[in-house]
Amino acid sequence: MNFATYTAQGQQFYGVDTGAGMIALSPFFPDWATLRDVIAADALHQLALKAQNLQVSHTDFTYDIPVPDPEKIICVGVNFPDRNAEYKDGQEAPPNMSLFPRFARSFTGHNGTVIRPPETPQLDYEGEIAIVIGKGGRRIAEEDAYDHIAALTLCNEGTLRDWVRHAKFNVTQGKNWDNSGAMGPHLVPFTSPAQLDDIELSCRVNDELRQQDRTSRMLFPIRRQIAYISTFTTLVSGDIIVTGTPTGAGARFDPPRFLTPGDTVTVAADGIGTLSCTVADE
Amino acid sequence: MNFATYTAQGQQFYGVDTGAGMIALSPFFPDWATLRDVIAADALHQLALKAQNLQVSHTDFTYDIPVPDPEKIICVGVNFPDRNAEYKDGQEAPPNMSLFPRFARSFTGHNGTVIRPPETPQLDYEGEIAIVIGKGGRRIAEEDAYDHIAALTLCNEGTLRDWVRHAKFNVTQGKNWDNSGAMGPHLVPFTSPAQLDDIELSCRVNDELRQQDRTSRMLFPIRRQIAYISTFTTLVSGDIIVTGTPTGAGARFDPPRFLTPGDTVTVAADGIGTLSCTVADE
Repeated sequence: MNFATYTAQGQQFYGVDTGAGMIALSPFFPDWATLRDVIAADALHQLALKAQNLQVSHTDFTYDIPVPDPEKIICVGVNFPDRNAEYKDGQEAPPNMSLFPRFARSFTGHNGTVIRPPETPQLDYEGEIAIVIGKGGRRIAEEDAYDHIAALTLCNEGTLRDWVRHAKFNVTQGKNWDNSGAMGPHLVPFTSPAQLDDIELSCRVNDELRQQDRTSRMLFPIRRQIAYISTFTTLVSGDIIVTGTPTGAGARFDPPRFLTPGDTVTVAADGIGTLSCTVADE
Repeated sequence: MNFATYTAQGQQFYGVDTGAGMIALSPFFPDWATLRDVIAADALHQLALKAQNLQVSHTDFTYDIPVPDPEKIICVGVNFPDRNAEYKDGQEAPPNMSLFPRFARSFTGHNGTVIRPPETPQLDYEGEIAIVIGKGGRRIAEEDAYDHIAALTLCNEGTLRDWVRHAKFNVTQGKNWDNSGAMGPHLVPFTSPAQLDDIELSCRVNDELRQQDRTSRMLFPIRRQIAYISTFTTLVSGDIIVTGTPTGAGARFDPPRFLTPGDTVTVAADGIGTLSCTVADE
């Protein structure tokens, strides 16, 4: 079942995406303002049960990011084979994963518009799988890590490339432009390791395949990501980990192939769905 | 007037710190759950007026961080003279400021305990001034920047040094250990440029002065910080910018002088007050 957060008639709802429209569920659960609260109550199944007796409520709507109010969104960098080599900086692959936070406002929802700002033409795409934390924890063991995932979704972890290298360290500014990326369309409940262990992830610009790899080839597997990140920070319900992108972002071509207005970026993964967004100038 | 967020009898309040106890104000303003909401309503003055007619409510309390629920906390790195040279990496000073987000849970309140985790002994201090955004905005001009500051506070931007360099890029993990830093004690309303333009900032470990400099010597002044950060992300009420630390952190000594259990870190700045915290092993 595909849970979504969306806006219809100026109001935000959460519900189930039937493919032929949305079944609004938030009106029935006033104690849970957003899907973050639903996940914190471990109640996605209650939503599913309720939806069985209901008709489609909205056919005219826009998708929002699935968890609109996460405490934190943490992204994993340089996490597929050959990604370190793409940097061409002569450095060895690092012993630990690179991490950077993104603010929720840097993402638009499914079918939304990703913005190329006037300050730089270097808007780039990065297709990724994102996990949503269910049960929180600190110092979670790798073998228990999957017990802490409530749901899966997709991400175009859009990046303003030159702004990533503005300063002495870190990538904060190039990774946090308002509406520079996309997340969604759905929260797909996570119930089996097979949903993550070895699935295909791809990213297309218009109809051209640019990125394609499998989760089994991650340098830092998702179990390890949860264990490592929770070493230093407490993960809480609704936290999102964006798990890394394969080779083939626009910056890695010679010459680089950045996004331009009208381009459509499509991220897809087995069983998690398809996330689309269109590029426009601000 | 010194506004604070604190916990008494298991409940969180905001109010005014009289020095002889707290005047609870949150019970009178149920529409504003936290000082973030008060700032968003531009209503610190309403709190001050209300406090004039009230007695101290609590003398037994613990300080929380002043804005417990900011949308984002952004820290500025390498922002005082000689700080770039301290890195000893042969790099020129960068043209733009380094930025990194911190999560609120990485800070404890005034008089709280900063935690040295079992994973590393390299807990370090960084004394800083923090500004709290009042009126939000995007692409704020430098000359208007001060109009967007609601209040000032202090920060020990505590850092686990070896974890800053775990990975290929950025500093996320070493800057985000739970309770590795401190913020507070108060929100001091910002009403005049003289409160920020050229004030002294210092940091002591026990009674030893380790850091001391003046805001007038920042490489990237606070006006420029607000302008630069708001270029890529919309600043909203309650957002916090931690504005950079002078030379003299423990990692810069040879051999390094990291914090050990029982140490007290004291950050002070003219007109903003004094923030203390004590180090303990987890």
